[in-house]
Amino acid sequence: MTEHDLVRELAEKNSSKIVMLVADGLGGLPMEPGGRTELETAATPHLDRLAARGTSGSSVPVLPGITPGSGPGHLGLFGYDPLHFKIGRGALEATGIGFELGPQDVAARGNFCTLDAAGLISDRRAGRIPSEESFRVVERLQAVRIDGVETFVKPVKEHRFVVVFRGPGLDGGVADTDPQATGVAPLDPQPATPAARRTADVAREFVRQARGILADEKKANGMVLRGFAAKPALPSYQELYGLRAAAIAVYPMYKGLARLVGMTLVGQAQTLAEQIDELAGCWNDYDFFFLHFKYTDSTGEDGAFAEKVKRIEELDAALPRIEALRPDVLVVTGDHSTPSRLKSHSWHPVPTLLVADTCRPDGLGGFSERECLRGGFGIFPARHLMLLAMAHAQRFGKYGA
Amino acid sequence: MTEHDLVRELAEKNSSKIVMLVADGLGGLPMEPGGRTELETAATPHLDRLAARGTSGSSVPVLPGITPGSGPGHLGLFGYDPLHFKIGRGALEATGIGFELGPQDVAARGNFCTLDAAGLISDRRAGRIPSEESFRVVERLQAVRIDGVETFVKPVKEHRFVVVFRGPGLDGGVADTDPQATGVAPLDPQPATPAARRTADVAREFVRQARGILADEKKANGMVLRGFAAKPALPSYQELYGLRAAAIAVYPMYKGLARLVGMTLVGQAQTLAEQIDELAGCWNDYDFFFLHFKYTDSTGEDGAFAEKVKRIEELDAALPRIEALRPDVLVVTGDHSTPSRLKSHSWHPVPTLLVADTCRPDGLGGFSERECLRGGFGIFPARHLMLLAMAHAQRFGKYGA
Repeated sequence: MTEHDLVRELAEKNSSKIVMLVADGLGGLPMEPGGRTELETAATPHLDRLAARGTSGSSVPVLPGITPGSGPGHLGLFGYDPLHFKIGRGALEATGIGFELGPQDVAARGNFCTLDAAGLISDRRAGRIPSEESFRVVERLQAVRIDGVETFVKPVKEHRFVVVFRGPGLDGGVADTDPQATGVAPLDPQPATPAARRTADVAREFVRQARGILADEKKANGMVLRGFAAKPALPSYQELYGLRAAAIAVYPMYKGLARLVGMTLVGQAQTLAEQIDELAGCWNDYDFFFLHFKYTDSTGEDGAFAEKVKRIEELDAALPRIEALRPDVLVVTGDHSTPSRLKSHSWHPVPTLLVADTCRPDGLGGFSERECLRGGFGIFPARHLMLLAMAHAQRFGKYGA
Repeated sequence: MTEHDLVRELAEKNSSKIVMLVADGLGGLPMEPGGRTELETAATPHLDRLAARGTSGSSVPVLPGITPGSGPGHLGLFGYDPLHFKIGRGALEATGIGFELGPQDVAARGNFCTLDAAGLISDRRAGRIPSEESFRVVERLQAVRIDGVETFVKPVKEHRFVVVFRGPGLDGGVADTDPQATGVAPLDPQPATPAARRTADVAREFVRQARGILADEKKANGMVLRGFAAKPALPSYQELYGLRAAAIAVYPMYKGLARLVGMTLVGQAQTLAEQIDELAGCWNDYDFFFLHFKYTDSTGEDGAFAEKVKRIEELDAALPRIEALRPDVLVVTGDHSTPSRLKSHSWHPVPTLLVADTCRPDGLGGFSERECLRGGFGIFPARHLMLLAMAHAQRFGKYGA
């Protein structure tokens, strides 16, 4: 019996409310030996108070030592084993710019490149054309027409774009066309599996028409396509947990990830305060609320230790407003660690806290990486966090008699 | 290689004795924030002393957040993954009343119901007839005769009974006949799989004859059957661990679970003192001893915090007599938590202690939920407890050279 089959079998409905507050990249490291992490440095009176009441632990996003991207990181938090459920590169890129993939879609990441007179790649990134120029070129590609297929071309940044083919019978199994070298021609889109033959034909036709349209471009007169992928087949929160789930996020990537698991996007909040306004506003309409806070990650990525500390304090200060809504289960966690010291995502476990009346006290006095190591959840796979949230919301029946 | 294959490969015999004392529903919760659990409240000088000598941990019966029934809870303690090895509802019900299932048996749970003149259900529980009346009705059903099949009908409680069909080629894949509604007829037993066709025929014939016999009953003149299940295919303790295992339990359910894994039921003890008498009496005949103590669960189910505390103290007081037998490995654990506060089984990890001369000390000063979190076994799946018991009894060879 798989974990998801078990969830489906045991899930029950009640009137409980679960809030999952994800501080992206929450976990950190000291900047020097003997020092404190960002979370240990921050003054977090509310988190500390909640930790004394709830149960804490250290969540492992994928496996010990494995650093996740945002996709696998969030899949784990949402209860999907990130080694089993994969979001293809193209699908993730489309998701990240807020393009909502449908069941008939195959998405690919595109890079504009410069081709010489012989059709060989002279610059693999089209001189890293500025985004505005890329937007203009993408606009020209809207003229592509392919029989029986709808085509969407969307700019990302600089020379990068996304193309989505929509139509019956498409398949993500098309090989990358990027030869990863200059002085050679882009590869022809080839099916990696028989099921992708038609999709490869579609991609080939797209490239052919695009070459015609862009023939007069100085820099972006060619393209390579990578990471062909359909929308991942993820069971929805509603189907799996029986939860009506709302996502209150600021950035397209996290909205997109939430949509992939069937959450409803609520509001247009631009700040944490506005996110909590939205939370309060839709409180009666949903059972589960995913709130995403980006800045603990972006400051970590910048190596801005002091800024990350401030962002953690900003998050802490916002907790009383969430508590005032009286959620039955409040989870505070991150999708991975982003230590300022490493200026990147990392594999270190993520400090995680769950507060509910059904918590067994674990005797902690505060919320930090070090405290969480001694918490009642121990060191646990992130994909089990939703099991714990459901249990503490008393939304699971008994397994076996 | 599965865990069981590994066990089979490494298991060795020696003269060691392992005692597993299961305090049903041992784990608990404080009744109010900041309070103590039942185990933390109880005076347990012997457990505390043993904890200082042994190794402790928190065992997770199934998965984090999953609340087990007695079946999956005990399967985990016995070393069988409760997600892989399942005891069907009918088999568990038969087990629970002390009916020993054989390899040719299929058991189902039965409810007597009241049928109107048109054969439609007017009362799904036959007016919840008292057990004595049900016993009388069950007695009448002993007259059923089916070609090539032996039939056992046993009363459970009130309108509930168990029917077991014994014969070659029977299969548990028969759909429930309970329409879960009044004003409709019971469903006909239908095979859910081709292999169960004959079993469905047998069940149909049983119902046909029973209807004839019970036609003059005012309340219990019909029945629905649910949870058809064969005896689960569990490798035995002898085959898996090479252990001659004895079960010393008071209640039929736990005797039954022990029989399912091939333990021998010893004695007719009705009290813990008598159970320990039996333990001493059969000490030389077995290698492994499962002692089941029910009252930590039943008091928890009743929400009787103070009573559960007393039962824990009763258990603690009995330990010196067990220690006097000088078991090589003594395990004290529970099959799940039953916090008085929740008045039910729960998902919280179970405080677990193993005492042996081979223990690595973990520096704990007592035995409680909070202490166990810092124990040497950490937070671990209950199904690994038998690996630890075997290891500390030095009954495992080395894996690989």
